[in-house]
Amino acid sequence: MKSLLTKILLMKSLLGLLLLANTASAADPLPSWNDTAPKKAIVTFVEQVTREGSPSFMQSAERIATFDNDGTLWPEQPMYFQIAFTLDRVKALAPQHPEWKEKQPFKAVLEGDMKTVFAGGEQAVIELGMATLTGNTTEEFAEIVRDWLATTKHPKTGRAYTEMVYQPMLELLAYLRANGFKTFIVSGGEAEFMRPWTEKVYGIPPEQVVGSSMKTKFELRSGKPVIVRLPEINFIDDNEGKPVGINQYIGRRPIAACGNSDGDLQMLQWTTAGSSASFALLIHHTNAEREWAYDRTSSMGRLDKALDEAHAKGWTVVDMKNDWKIIYSFEKK
Amino acid sequence: MKSLLTKILLMKSLLGLLLLANTASAADPLPSWNDTAPKKAIVTFVEQVTREGSPSFMQSAERIATFDNDGTLWPEQPMYFQIAFTLDRVKALAPQHPEWKEKQPFKAVLEGDMKTVFAGGEQAVIELGMATLTGNTTEEFAEIVRDWLATTKHPKTGRAYTEMVYQPMLELLAYLRANGFKTFIVSGGEAEFMRPWTEKVYGIPPEQVVGSSMKTKFELRSGKPVIVRLPEINFIDDNEGKPVGINQYIGRRPIAACGNSDGDLQMLQWTTAGSSASFALLIHHTNAEREWAYDRTSSMGRLDKALDEAHAKGWTVVDMKNDWKIIYSFEKK
Repeated sequence: MKSLLTKILLMKSLLGLLLLANTASAADPLPSWNDTAPKKAIVTFVEQVTREGSPSFMQSAERIATFDNDGTLWPEQPMYFQIAFTLDRVKALAPQHPEWKEKQPFKAVLEGDMKTVFAGGEQAVIELGMATLTGNTTEEFAEIVRDWLATTKHPKTGRAYTEMVYQPMLELLAYLRANGFKTFIVSGGEAEFMRPWTEKVYGIPPEQVVGSSMKTKFELRSGKPVIVRLPEINFIDDNEGKPVGINQYIGRRPIAACGNSDGDLQMLQWTTAGSSASFALLIHHTNAEREWAYDRTSSMGRLDKALDEAHAKGWTVVDMKNDWKIIYSFEKK
Repeated sequence: MKSLLTKILLMKSLLGLLLLANTASAADPLPSWNDTAPKKAIVTFVEQVTREGSPSFMQSAERIATFDNDGTLWPEQPMYFQIAFTLDRVKALAPQHPEWKEKQPFKAVLEGDMKTVFAGGEQAVIELGMATLTGNTTEEFAEIVRDWLATTKHPKTGRAYTEMVYQPMLELLAYLRANGFKTFIVSGGEAEFMRPWTEKVYGIPPEQVVGSSMKTKFELRSGKPVIVRLPEINFIDDNEGKPVGINQYIGRRPIAACGNSDGDLQMLQWTTAGSSASFALLIHHTNAEREWAYDRTSSMGRLDKALDEAHAKGWTVVDMKNDWKIIYSFEKK
């Protein structure tokens, strides 16, 4: 029996070696990234924190990585996708609200007058959201989100929104997870707008999605418990809200964080202020031809102060045009 | 090469069988549980949801289990341990607050007059907490919690609080995790009071601890980012707050939940109202000799409505005296 076991163990080791050799030869974990500075910085950081004996080694439990969503994992042009969703909800619910034909900002949405809608600023968008995205149960809302994503195409690419996720970022998420990281979304968007699809699209489960939220209420309806979405903001997970949300939902400091706008600045400051090695990455939208090019003056995803701080502090800045081979997951061969 | 590989794979399967046989013979995963109905109900449920092909099979990602903390994973007598912590903070900070000698409820705490403190009800406790547990940074607070736990003994057992965790529940947590469950705490206690020690004591990492919380604020102090605890309640994770917190922090419905009081009722209702198989467990404190015995009229951890509903719905009720062999982890041989 003992010699059989020895033999088995030997065979098992051999099998392990074969598999390892296979993996090593097969794998560039970031094939959609050009061999420029950002890719090198990512690989160097991951090796530093995962190699036992390295002065920067971190236990797997401490390898928390947080990702902004809009503009970091998928686009945010010509408007945040949740705003496009909200406008479509106004149209879908309009037959039940004849008064909207005469009431702003609803009237402008129904007439396709985006200039007037956006002239109302954040307040107009919030008013539209309160009227169309609340009052239902959490399960009803998740179903509406799934239906919308399944049936709606982006006006520029003609693709489903969930096909427009950034292929290089999918590779980065997978690479980090393969190296013992736990990947979280920390987004200004609403958590309940993201959770129905992030596991399938990004490999990020609902419990690792931190976002803005509405207040909700538990109630029994004919004995059946439901959670109802109330027309009141609970938490805004943006700017200073991002480290606050990280502390509240995750409860420990990330060692890596990725964003693309000034709304991510405080998350990157918090991530890089710990005593351990850390990594901060900013995505700079520079590809007008294949995606969009914008930064310091954009109304969606403005990147101004955070870009200056990235340069001052040596954070990694991805130039989408020069550092990525392809943009969207649908371009993958 | 092919025949070698075939041989390796055969050997590997054989090895798997040997290991499996070994595991099956070695392990009662719940050795501190008597062979009474609750243990059988737990094992039956876990087998149902983990056996592929079972009509109740659930993917590992959906195996979310939530646990109350006070009275479910550790005791809540003679008072919630966070209240004991708060009273000790009053004493520790009293030299900096000479005015407390004449001001209730501080005066009563300093004089050891617990009757007067508790006569003030929840409001008095909240006032003490606001004055002593806020104003510091999250990192300072975590350090204070760790120091207190390292230096304080429970008045009845003379043991550290973190040694008084329930051994049968540690086994249940480990058994669920070994079967692909993700275990969460969902407690009325403050998340920031639990997170500094739950990973070490329960194997539950900070990001899987949902609890009540204070509002916090991000700020730069001489360029260094800190998160400051404000004297304002952000969220109460109790009663109706538990399913609300589960939805907000975890984002999917648990399939198993364990509690011990009416404060857990709505969590158990929510957990068992989904379309899948589910498991609800209530711990009934019945061991006056080795722990405490209390239920329908207790001021801490009242178990009244939830006990009636458990009987009506066939939830599992643990009789601590009859269903557990030992109580605390320090009793483990």
